[in-house]
This record gives sequence, C-alpha cells and structure tokens, in this order.
Amino acid sequence: MVNQPPDPLTALRWQGDHLELLDQRALPAEQRWLDARHLEQVIAAIRVMAVRGAPAIGIAAAYGAVIAAQHRTGPEGLDVARWHDDLDRLAAARPTAVNLRWAIERMRRTAERAGPGMVAVLEAEARRLHAEDLAQNQAMGRTGAAFIEPGSRVLTHCNTGALATGGWGTALGVVRSAWAEGRIAQVFATETRPWLQGSRLTAWELAQDHIPVTLIVDSAAAATIRGEGIHWVLVGADRIAANGDLANKIGTYGLALAARAHGARLMVVAPSGTVDLGVPDGAAIPIEDRAADEVWEAVGAAPRPAGVTVANPAFDITPAGLIDLLVTEKGVVGHPDRASMARLFGG
Amino acid sequence: MVNQPPDPLTALRWQGDHLELLDQRALPAEQRWLDARHLEQVIAAIRVMAVRGAPAIGIAAAYGAVIAAQHRTGPEGLDVARWHDDLDRLAAARPTAVNLRWAIERMRRTAERAGPGMVAVLEAEARRLHAEDLAQNQAMGRTGAAFIEPGSRVLTHCNTGALATGGWGTALGVVRSAWAEGRIAQVFATETRPWLQGSRLTAWELAQDHIPVTLIVDSAAAATIRGEGIHWVLVGADRIAANGDLANKIGTYGLALAARAHGARLMVVAPSGTVDLGVPDGAAIPIEDRAADEVWEAVGAAPRPAGVTVANPAFDITPAGLIDLLVTEKGVVGHPDRASMARLFGG
Repeated sequence: MVNQPPDPLTALRWQGDHLELLDQRALPAEQRWLDARHLEQVIAAIRVMAVRGAPAIGIAAAYGAVIAAQHRTGPEGLDVARWHDDLDRLAAARPTAVNLRWAIERMRRTAERAGPGMVAVLEAEARRLHAEDLAQNQAMGRTGAAFIEPGSRVLTHCNTGALATGGWGTALGVVRSAWAEGRIAQVFATETRPWLQGSRLTAWELAQDHIPVTLIVDSAAAATIRGEGIHWVLVGADRIAANGDLANKIGTYGLALAARAHGARLMVVAPSGTVDLGVPDGAAIPIEDRAADEVWEAVGAAPRPAGVTVANPAFDITPAGLIDLLVTEKGVVGHPDRASMARLFGG
Repeated sequence: MVNQPPDPLTALRWQGDHLELLDQRALPAEQRWLDARHLEQVIAAIRVMAVRGAPAIGIAAAYGAVIAAQHRTGPEGLDVARWHDDLDRLAAARPTAVNLRWAIERMRRTAERAGPGMVAVLEAEARRLHAEDLAQNQAMGRTGAAFIEPGSRVLTHCNTGALATGGWGTALGVVRSAWAEGRIAQVFATETRPWLQGSRLTAWELAQDHIPVTLIVDSAAAATIRGEGIHWVLVGADRIAANGDLANKIGTYGLALAARAHGARLMVVAPSGTVDLGVPDGAAIPIEDRAADEVWEAVGAAPRPAGVTVANPAFDITPAGLIDLLVTEKGVVGHPDRASMARLFGG
C-alpha cells in the first residue's frame, strides 16, 4: 500500500471511505476541509472549484471513482455498467483539464484488469496515482530548476502549487525547487482574476514556505516583465495538444506574448497526463466558459445593468511557438512542435 | 459666461461656490454626489479617485483653483503667493496625469493676466476649460469614428467616458460616436483591476446610452483580441511624451502587444492637453504606485501574509511604435513619432 504523501501542504486527504478536500474557496481566510462521501460531492467540489488545478482535479476524480465503486458494490461485486455511467458524469464536471479524463481512463483500465476485491484494487490505484503526482512534481521541480540561472527573476500565473496538485506543485514546484537552490532573486505572482488564485492561493502557499512574493494585478504583467527584467515566466497546463499548443488559465497567452516581446522565457511545467495526443492543436481544445457572476460579483451588490453581458472563459490557448521549454516527468522539450512532442510522448 | 455642458452624463457640476463630484467609488450601486467646498476636499477627491480620468482630474483641478482663489481673496484682493502654494499642493495630488498640471498652469496664466475681479475671471476660465473639454471630446468622437469601418468589433480599457472627462468621453466618446453612426458590431470592455473602472463605470455608462457591451477580465484581452477578431483597441491617455510614447491605465501595454500580434489597431484618443512635450519619452514619465490595499482588498478580510508584498502601478508605458492612430482635437497622427508629434503640437 502506498502511503499518503508526507508533504504538509496538501489539499487532498484520502480517508479510506471518503475524501477530504481543503476548500480553496475559503483560503486564505480559513482552512476549511470538506468531506466528500458521495460521488456527487466530488463532482460538485470540482465544478465549484473547491478543488481546482488540473492535477488535483485528476487525483480527486480517481478517489471519486473509488467512492463510486464502493457505492456500486453489492453482494454480486461491482456493478460495472452503472460505475462507468458514474465516471461519465464525473468526466463532464469540467471540460478543459485533460487530467480529469486521463485519471478516469486510468481507473477504468484498472477495473478491466481487476477481478474480486476490485474496490481495494481501485483504491490502491488512486493512492498510487496521487503519490506518483507528488513524486513527479518533485522530479519536475528539480529538472525545471536546473534551467533557472542563479539571480533570476520569475513570474508565475494562477496557482500551480501544492494546492493544485498532489503536492509540491508543477510550475510552483519549480519555483520551490529553484528557491531552495538559491537560484531565484524575486518571485512575482499575478492575482489571477476572476478567482484570485494568485493572491489567495499562491501567495498563501509561498508564505507557508517563507518564500517572499510580489503580487500584481494581471494587467500589470506586461509592464512588470519589461520593467522588472523577468527572466522566466512559469506556468502549468490544463491540456497540451499533440503539436505543443497549450491550454492554461486565462491570461497565459498574454503573458506569453509579453515574455516573447522582452526576451523572458516561458516554461510550462506539467505531468505527461496533461498531454492529449488526441487533439491535434489548440483550436481543438474545448474552452470552459464559466458563469458571469464569477466576474460581476467583484462589483458588489449592484445588479448588472441590462445590455451588459460577461464573457468568462476560464482558459486560453498559447501556441506552441511561444513556449521555450516544456518540463514533464518524462523529460523536457525545448520549443515543442509535433515532432518533438511525438518523440517524447509517442503517438 | 459659458453654460454648463448639457450632457446628462457628467461627473462634475460647478455650483458657483463649490464643486459637486459624482463619487466614482460608489458606482454603479449608488449615484452619490460629493460637495467640495474647500481645496483640501478637491485634493482628497482626486487622491482617493472619487473623481478620476485624466481630463476630469484637470477640470476638477481648475475648479479647485477657483475655490482656492475664493478662499484666498480678502479686502486686498487675491493673495497670489498663497494661492500659488495651494496650486502646488493640488498639482501633487496625482503624479502621472499631465492634464492636472496643464489645467493648473492654465489657471496660473489666467491669473497673470487678470486684474480686479480675478475670482470671476478664474471662474470663467474654469467653466471655459470644462466646456472646451466636452466640445473637444465630441469633435474627437466624430474624427475617431470616421476611422472605424462599419461592422467593427472594438475593445476598450478602463473608463474614458463622460465620467472621466467633461462629458462624452475620449476613447469612449469615439465608441459613442461610432455606435451612433452604426459602425460598431460589438463592444468589449476589460474590467480594469484593481479599481474595476470597466465593470463599474464603463458598463454603467454604456448601459445609460443603451450600447450593449461584453465585459471580460483583463487577462482575457489577448484571447479576446485573437478569438473575437477585434478590429480596434481604443484607449485614452494620461500623458503622451514628445516622441509619442503613451502613459495610460495599467494594462494598456499588454493590450497594445496583443493588438499588434493580431492585426487589431490601437487608437489613442486624448485632448492635446495630455501631450507633454517637456518629457522626451515614456521612460521620463513618472508612474504612480498606489496602495497595496487596492489590490489586496479583493481577497477579503484575510490579512496579507508576511512576505507577501504588492506592487500596484496605476499606469504603464506603451511605446509610440505600437500606436496606430492618435486622435486629438487638433487633428490626428498616424504612427506617432517625434517629428509628427512636433508638427501637430509644436515644440
């Protein structure tokens, strides 16, 4: 049996029959843990972003598949047909992050192999997936950090840390590793509207590790990259297409343009489960449009005037040509394209 | 005597002995008018952004100079030395917008010429400056609109409308004029953190005029310019240097980079009082850093963790090379540079 990851900063705790989720809507004011004892609670937690971050969503989904299997197991064993229906609903909770579908497919494949005691087999697989994510992140942290010259000034977007993953983080894991190695002179973080993952989550995480950080509004990124001499922009990924195009938190594309304009390099840090060779390029990646209220509620209690609509895409596409380095647990790809992606990830 | 502008949408009302300001911190929830009867109240209103927008700040300052003159006038007439000291303090209220200093210099020059009855002369000059701003904006609206092809999709940043000016608006005045002429298919507005001028003010203004608008978070601008096929990005200006470099609301530079990457054109709309031939280029324009709390308060009641700092520049610099068209009341400049700026504005 694989143990729980030892990282003290974690947003996911599996308790054998239920999943505990650190409710990321309540941070940094409150560390409130939610119990998910039914599949519907896992789906709701993913939808409302109580758990968020592509890798963390994948891990939550794996445990969700275990919970579903526990509920679908009777004297005859697992009701496989209804369990697969459960997983179909789980897979639809958020459309852009491929880790969700990747984790669910892995659980389905596990069920194909398993015979009696299938729930225990599924539980072991979910724990393994969780532990692998942490181990991968620590490995990617070391790998990515090696590319960061001592004295570098880095900028990161959204939250790609322990809260977004099984622990340590992807892009923020590289920041952690590079900071520990004394390579980073200053960290800038965008606040990341509308959900403020930067100011609510990344700032809180870095403060836990005593890593100083300067927050900026998202629109200050271009001036900061230019004026502060940023060396690396570090981001995670929600899905990476076969040609290397990147779907990531809204705003990533603008950061990539500004980085390119000023000689800052763009590093994308993501486990290989984020790579979806089934989509040829970024145009084929579905982009989740979230509710208008996520944006409008910042205005306060005033109702939205008639004629005022809100577009709230949660992600944007950054073309592969703007990516300087893709770091995965399988290795790195400089300036990814279809050929280099195929070499590392097959397909 | 020049009359008050007739535009129903105005944020400034001069009442003979005091200035009424539509408190822009309370919009759109509440239309609350503040009375400024003392110079310190005008200075405070500018500092806290109860009145904001470079042209509106200039007009408020002109009326502030009148209020100061009223208070500095005794049986011996105006105490000119103390009045100039007052104006020095007024000029320091916000550092980036040049209209503030421009309006104050105009009031100082008026005082040089005026003899007895100087307060009345100053009052007439402030009213004239206010009325000129409205007339200039309406003229710039017509001029700028002529460059917008029917069926265009436009994106604007911050608030450059009636609330930011003496009426009608600069960039938003062009949107108003072009909309009235049937040239605009769709308007997008950025919410404009940290102050949300886009969602609080621009959306409200456009709703008053029944012009539909789609709000986006600032970081969605690059993806919107690409994905929605934006033809024009329309912005105002807080200061324009002799070489055409632009200081404007933070985020303008990123918009300019994204526009250039996708063939959208950048139109800057500003009265000639915004042009400061005394600064050679954007690097010489002072950028106001505002309080950390303006950014952090979005997080809610949670205290800012130790080690988390905030950089809150209110403006950024867009190099002249990214500007496709500068529209002023004196005429237009395509692709501004030092030579074309000097031709139109002297110097």
